[in-house]
Amino acid sequence: MIFAMDASRPAEVVPIGRVHSSLVDPAEAPKQGHEGAPDARIEILPAFVEALDAIEPGDEIVLLTWFHRADREVLKVHPRDDPGNPLTGVFATRSADRPNPIGLHRVEVLEIEDDGWLTVPGLEAIDGTPVIDIKPVLEPPGF
Amino acid sequence: MIFAMDASRPAEVVPIGRVHSSLVDPAEAPKQGHEGAPDARIEILPAFVEALDAIEPGDEIVLLTWFHRADREVLKVHPRDDPGNPLTGVFATRSADRPNPIGLHRVEVLEIEDDGWLTVPGLEAIDGTPVIDIKPVLEPPGF
Repeated sequence: MIFAMDASRPAEVVPIGRVHSSLVDPAEAPKQGHEGAPDARIEILPAFVEALDAIEPGDEIVLLTWFHRADREVLKVHPRDDPGNPLTGVFATRSADRPNPIGLHRVEVLEIEDDGWLTVPGLEAIDGTPVIDIKPVLEPPGF
Repeated sequence: MIFAMDASRPAEVVPIGRVHSSLVDPAEAPKQGHEGAPDARIEILPAFVEALDAIEPGDEIVLLTWFHRADREVLKVHPRDDPGNPLTGVFATRSADRPNPIGLHRVEVLEIEDDGWLTVPGLEAIDGTPVIDIKPVLEPPGF
Protein backbone atom coordinates (compact mmCIF):
# COMPACT_ATOMS: atom_id res chain seq x y z
CA MET A 1 0.00 0.00 0.00
CA ILE A 2 1.43 3.37 -0.99
CA PHE A 3 -0.11 5.39 1.83
CA ALA A 4 -1.86 4.79 5.10
CA MET A 5 -5.42 5.92 5.77
CA ASP A 6 -4.27 7.73 8.87
CA ALA A 7 -1.03 7.29 10.71
CA SER A 8 -2.65 7.81 14.08
CA ARG A 9 -5.61 5.45 13.85
CA PRO A 10 -6.38 2.28 11.90
CA ALA A 11 -9.29 2.66 9.49
CA GLU A 12 -11.44 0.04 11.11
CA VAL A 13 -15.16 0.00 10.42
CA VAL A 14 -17.34 -0.53 13.48
CA PRO A 15 -20.87 -1.93 13.32
CA ILE A 16 -23.52 0.56 14.43
CA GLY A 17 -26.27 -2.02 14.02
CA ARG A 18 -27.42 -5.13 12.29
CA VAL A 19 -30.03 -6.30 9.76
CA HIS A 20 -32.78 -8.67 10.92
CA SER A 21 -34.41 -10.28 7.91
CA SER A 22 -36.08 -13.45 6.69
CA LEU A 23 -33.32 -13.61 4.05
CA VAL A 24 -30.66 -15.95 5.37
CA ASP A 25 -29.08 -17.44 2.25
CA PRO A 26 -27.05 -15.03 0.08
CA ALA A 27 -27.92 -17.18 -2.94
CA GLU A 28 -31.59 -16.37 -2.39
CA ALA A 29 -31.12 -12.63 -1.88
CA PRO A 30 -32.36 -10.42 -4.74
CA LYS A 31 -29.67 -8.35 -6.47
CA GLN A 32 -31.52 -5.14 -5.64
CA GLY A 33 -34.11 -4.30 -3.01
CA HIS A 34 -36.87 -3.55 -5.51
CA GLU A 35 -36.53 -7.04 -6.99
CA GLY A 36 -38.76 -8.70 -4.42
CA ALA A 37 -36.70 -8.29 -1.25
CA PRO A 38 -38.62 -8.53 2.03
CA ASP A 39 -39.08 -5.79 4.60
CA ALA A 40 -36.38 -5.84 7.25
CA ARG A 41 -35.84 -4.58 10.77
CA ILE A 42 -32.66 -2.71 11.60
CA GLU A 43 -31.31 -2.96 15.13
CA ILE A 44 -29.17 0.03 16.11
CA LEU A 45 -26.78 -0.73 18.96
CA PRO A 46 -27.53 1.14 22.20
CA ALA A 47 -24.28 3.15 21.99
CA PHE A 48 -25.45 4.72 18.72
CA VAL A 49 -29.20 5.25 19.25
CA GLU A 50 -28.63 8.91 20.08
CA ALA A 51 -27.28 9.47 16.56
CA LEU A 52 -30.76 8.61 15.13
CA ASP A 53 -32.25 11.73 16.67
CA ALA A 54 -34.29 13.68 14.06
CA ILE A 55 -34.96 10.66 11.83
CA GLU A 56 -38.72 10.25 11.35
CA PRO A 57 -41.03 7.74 9.66
CA GLY A 58 -41.33 8.66 6.00
CA ASP A 59 -37.73 9.86 5.73
CA GLU A 60 -35.67 8.56 2.81
CA ILE A 61 -32.31 7.30 4.01
CA VAL A 62 -29.24 5.62 2.62
CA LEU A 63 -28.32 2.60 4.71
CA LEU A 64 -24.68 1.54 4.45
CA THR A 65 -23.95 -2.10 5.18
CA TRP A 66 -20.83 -4.24 5.29
CA PHE A 67 -21.12 -7.44 3.23
CA HIS A 68 -19.25 -9.52 5.77
CA ARG A 69 -19.26 -12.64 3.59
CA ALA A 70 -17.82 -10.92 0.51
CA ASP A 71 -14.61 -11.91 -1.26
CA ARG A 72 -12.45 -8.79 -1.05
CA GLU A 73 -9.87 -10.04 -3.57
CA VAL A 74 -12.28 -9.95 -6.53
CA LEU A 75 -11.64 -7.14 -9.07
CA LYS A 76 -13.81 -8.33 -11.99
CA VAL A 77 -17.15 -10.14 -12.11
CA HIS A 78 -19.77 -11.31 -14.55
CA PRO A 79 -22.58 -8.83 -13.73
CA ARG A 80 -25.58 -10.40 -12.00
CA ASP A 81 -23.62 -13.69 -11.76
CA ASP A 82 -24.53 -14.39 -15.39
CA PRO A 83 -21.62 -16.00 -17.26
CA GLY A 84 -23.17 -14.58 -20.44
CA ASN A 85 -22.28 -11.07 -19.26
CA PRO A 86 -18.67 -10.08 -20.01
CA LEU A 87 -16.20 -9.72 -17.14
CA THR A 88 -16.56 -6.19 -15.76
CA GLY A 89 -14.58 -4.20 -13.20
CA VAL A 90 -16.32 -4.36 -9.82
CA PHE A 91 -16.32 -0.54 -9.56
CA ALA A 92 -18.68 -0.52 -12.56
CA THR A 93 -21.04 -2.96 -10.77
CA ARG A 94 -22.92 -3.34 -7.51
CA SER A 95 -21.21 -6.68 -6.78
CA ALA A 96 -20.88 -7.46 -3.06
CA ASP A 97 -17.44 -8.89 -3.87
CA ARG A 98 -15.12 -5.86 -4.01
CA PRO A 99 -12.11 -4.47 -2.11
CA ASN A 100 -14.26 -2.71 0.51
CA PRO A 101 -17.57 -4.60 0.57
CA ILE A 102 -19.86 -1.70 1.43
CA GLY A 103 -23.51 -1.87 0.41
CA LEU A 104 -25.69 1.18 -0.33
CA HIS A 105 -29.43 0.79 0.14
CA ARG A 106 -31.84 3.66 -0.42
CA VAL A 107 -34.96 3.01 1.64
CA GLU A 108 -37.83 4.78 3.33
CA VAL A 109 -38.13 4.58 7.10
CA LEU A 110 -41.49 2.90 7.76
CA GLU A 111 -41.23 2.82 11.55
CA ILE A 112 -38.79 3.91 14.20
CA GLU A 113 -38.93 2.78 17.81
CA ASP A 114 -37.46 4.55 20.84
CA ASP A 115 -35.00 1.76 21.45
CA GLY A 116 -33.44 2.23 18.02
CA TRP A 117 -35.19 -0.35 15.86
CA LEU A 118 -36.11 0.76 12.35
CA THR A 119 -38.41 -0.97 9.88
CA VAL A 120 -37.55 -0.54 6.20
CA PRO A 121 -39.09 -2.03 3.03
CA GLY A 122 -37.46 -4.21 0.41
CA LEU A 123 -33.92 -4.76 1.71
CA GLU A 124 -31.69 -7.22 -0.16
CA ALA A 125 -29.15 -7.63 2.69
CA ILE A 126 -29.22 -10.96 4.50
CA ASP A 127 -29.98 -11.50 8.18
CA GLY A 128 -27.03 -10.52 10.36
CA THR A 129 -25.47 -8.08 7.89
CA PRO A 130 -23.67 -5.34 9.85
CA VAL A 131 -24.95 -1.80 9.37
CA ILE A 132 -22.16 0.78 9.36
CA ASP A 133 -23.84 4.12 8.63
CA ILE A 134 -27.13 5.88 7.92
CA LYS A 135 -27.38 9.10 5.90
CA PRO A 136 -30.27 11.26 4.75
CA VAL A 137 -31.06 11.27 1.04
CA LEU A 138 -30.24 14.68 -0.43
CA GLU A 139 -32.38 16.06 -3.25
CA PRO A 140 -31.58 17.93 -5.37
CA PRO A 141 -29.13 16.93 -6.68
CA GLY A 142 -28.77 14.06 -4.38
CA PHE A 143 -28.97 10.41 -3.83
CA MET B 1 -19.58 -4.26 21.14
CA ILE B 2 -22.30 -6.91 21.04
CA PHE B 3 -21.13 -8.70 17.91
CA ALA B 4 -18.06 -8.79 15.70
CA MET B 5 -18.17 -7.88 12.03
CA ASP B 6 -16.57 -11.18 11.14
CA ALA B 7 -14.72 -13.50 13.42
CA SER B 8 -12.27 -14.51 10.71
CA ARG B 9 -11.19 -11.11 9.44
CA PRO B 10 -11.06 -7.62 10.89
CA ALA B 11 -13.31 -5.13 9.12
CA GLU B 12 -10.56 -2.86 8.02
CA VAL B 13 -11.15 -0.41 5.19
CA VAL B 14 -8.35 -0.24 2.63
CA PRO B 15 -7.75 2.80 0.41
CA ILE B 16 -8.27 2.07 -3.27
CA GLY B 17 -7.21 5.58 -4.25
CA ARG B 18 -6.89 9.16 -3.19
CA VAL B 19 -8.35 12.59 -3.96
CA HIS B 20 -6.11 15.24 -5.54
CA SER B 21 -7.71 18.64 -5.15
CA SER B 22 -6.95 22.32 -4.68
CA LEU B 23 -9.01 22.08 -1.47
CA VAL B 24 -6.57 21.59 1.38
CA ASP B 25 -8.27 23.14 4.39
CA PRO B 26 -11.39 21.32 5.69
CA ALA B 27 -12.70 24.68 6.94
CA GLU B 28 -12.76 25.94 3.35
CA ALA B 29 -14.42 22.87 1.85
CA PRO B 30 -18.05 23.36 0.76
CA LYS B 31 -20.60 21.19 2.58
CA GLN B 32 -21.75 19.64 -0.70
CA GLY B 33 -20.08 19.31 -4.08
CA HIS B 34 -22.62 21.50 -5.87
CA GLU B 35 -21.88 24.39 -3.52
CA GLY B 36 -18.87 25.63 -5.45
CA ALA B 37 -16.44 22.75 -4.96
CA PRO B 38 -13.61 22.51 -7.52
CA ASP B 39 -13.05 19.71 -10.00
CA ALA B 40 -10.79 17.01 -8.62
CA ARG B 41 -8.56 14.22 -9.89
CA ILE B 42 -8.90 10.76 -8.40
CA GLU B 43 -5.83 8.56 -8.32
CA ILE B 44 -6.67 4.87 -8.26
CA LEU B 45 -3.85 2.73 -6.87
CA PRO B 46 -2.24 0.36 -9.41
CA ALA B 47 -3.49 -2.74 -7.58
CA PHE B 48 -7.10 -1.66 -8.18
CA VAL B 49 -7.03 -0.16 -11.69
CA GLU B 50 -8.40 -3.38 -13.16
CA ALA B 51 -11.60 -2.89 -11.16
CA LEU B 52 -12.33 0.31 -13.18
CA ASP B 53 -12.84 -1.72 -16.35
CA ALA B 54 -16.12 -0.70 -18.08
CA ILE B 55 -16.27 2.77 -16.50
CA GLU B 56 -16.47 5.39 -19.26
CA PRO B 57 -16.50 9.19 -19.46
CA GLY B 58 -20.05 10.41 -18.94
CA ASP B 59 -20.89 7.67 -16.42
CA GLU B 60 -22.55 8.73 -13.18
CA ILE B 61 -20.80 7.17 -10.21
CA VAL B 62 -20.95 7.23 -6.45
CA LEU B 63 -17.53 7.84 -4.99
CA LEU B 64 -17.08 6.62 -1.41
CA THR B 65 -14.42 8.38 0.62
CA TRP B 66 -13.07 8.04 4.15
CA PHE B 67 -12.98 11.33 6.05
CA HIS B 68 -9.69 10.53 7.71
CA ARG B 69 -9.73 13.69 9.84
CA ALA B 70 -13.22 13.12 11.25
CA ASP B 71 -14.08 12.81 14.94
CA ARG B 72 -15.64 9.35 15.24
CA GLU B 73 -16.97 9.91 18.76
CA VAL B 74 -19.50 12.56 17.70
CA LEU B 75 -23.18 11.44 17.77
CA LYS B 76 -24.96 14.83 17.47
CA VAL B 77 -24.08 17.99 15.60
CA HIS B 78 -25.48 21.40 14.75
CA PRO B 79 -26.23 20.88 11.04
CA ARG B 80 -23.96 22.85 8.71
CA ASP B 81 -21.87 23.91 11.75
CA ASP B 82 -24.48 26.55 12.50
CA PRO B 83 -25.07 26.88 16.27
CA GLY B 84 -28.52 28.23 15.38
CA ASN B 85 -29.51 24.79 14.12
CA PRO B 86 -30.65 22.43 16.89
CA LEU B 87 -28.45 19.48 17.82
CA THR B 88 -29.31 16.62 15.47
CA GLY B 89 -28.28 12.97 15.36
CA VAL B 90 -25.43 12.52 12.88
CA PHE B 91 -27.37 9.77 11.05
CA ALA B 92 -29.89 12.48 10.05
CA THR B 93 -27.08 14.65 8.65
CA ARG B 94 -24.19 14.46 6.20
CA SER B 95 -21.68 15.47 8.90
CA ALA B 96 -18.17 14.10 8.32
CA ASP B 97 -17.97 13.52 12.07
CA ARG B 98 -19.77 10.20 12.65
CA PRO B 99 -18.93 6.67 13.87
CA ASN B 100 -17.78 5.48 10.43
CA PRO B 101 -16.72 8.62 8.54
CA ILE B 102 -17.68 7.52 5.04
CA GLY B 103 -18.48 10.17 2.44
CA LEU B 104 -20.84 9.64 -0.52
CA HIS B 105 -20.28 11.79 -3.58
CA ARG B 106 -22.39 11.44 -6.69
CA VAL B 107 -20.38 12.71 -9.65
CA GLU B 108 -20.03 12.33 -13.40
CA VAL B 109 -16.80 10.91 -14.77
CA LEU B 110 -15.36 13.65 -16.99
CA GLU B 111 -12.19 11.84 -18.00
CA ILE B 112 -10.57 8.49 -17.34
CA GLU B 113 -6.95 7.69 -18.13
CA ASP B 114 -5.44 4.26 -18.73
CA ASP B 115 -3.32 4.48 -15.60
CA GLY B 116 -6.39 4.87 -13.40
CA TRP B 117 -6.75 8.62 -12.96
CA LEU B 118 -10.29 9.98 -13.07
CA THR B 119 -11.38 13.60 -13.38
CA VAL B 120 -14.64 14.52 -11.66
CA PRO B 121 -16.45 17.84 -11.19
CA GLY B 122 -17.36 19.63 -7.99
CA LEU B 123 -15.93 17.42 -5.25
CA GLU B 124 -16.06 18.70 -1.67
CA ALA B 125 -13.45 16.24 -0.32
CA ILE B 126 -10.07 17.74 0.56
CA ASP B 127 -6.74 16.87 -1.04
CA GLY B 128 -5.43 13.54 0.23
CA THR B 129 -8.82 12.10 1.22
CA PRO B 130 -8.73 8.31 0.80
CA VAL B 131 -11.15 6.82 -1.72
CA ILE B 132 -12.56 3.47 -0.59
CA ASP B 133 -15.07 2.46 -3.27
CA ILE B 134 -16.70 3.44 -6.57
CA LYS B 135 -20.19 2.29 -7.58
CA PRO B 136 -22.39 2.95 -10.58
CA VAL B 137 -25.48 5.09 -10.02
CA LEU B 138 -28.60 2.96 -10.42
CA GLU B 139 -31.76 4.50 -11.91
CA PRO B 140 -34.50 3.75 -11.40
CA PRO B 141 -35.02 3.66 -8.50
CA GLY B 142 -31.52 4.27 -7.57
CA PHE B 143 -28.94 6.65 -6.30
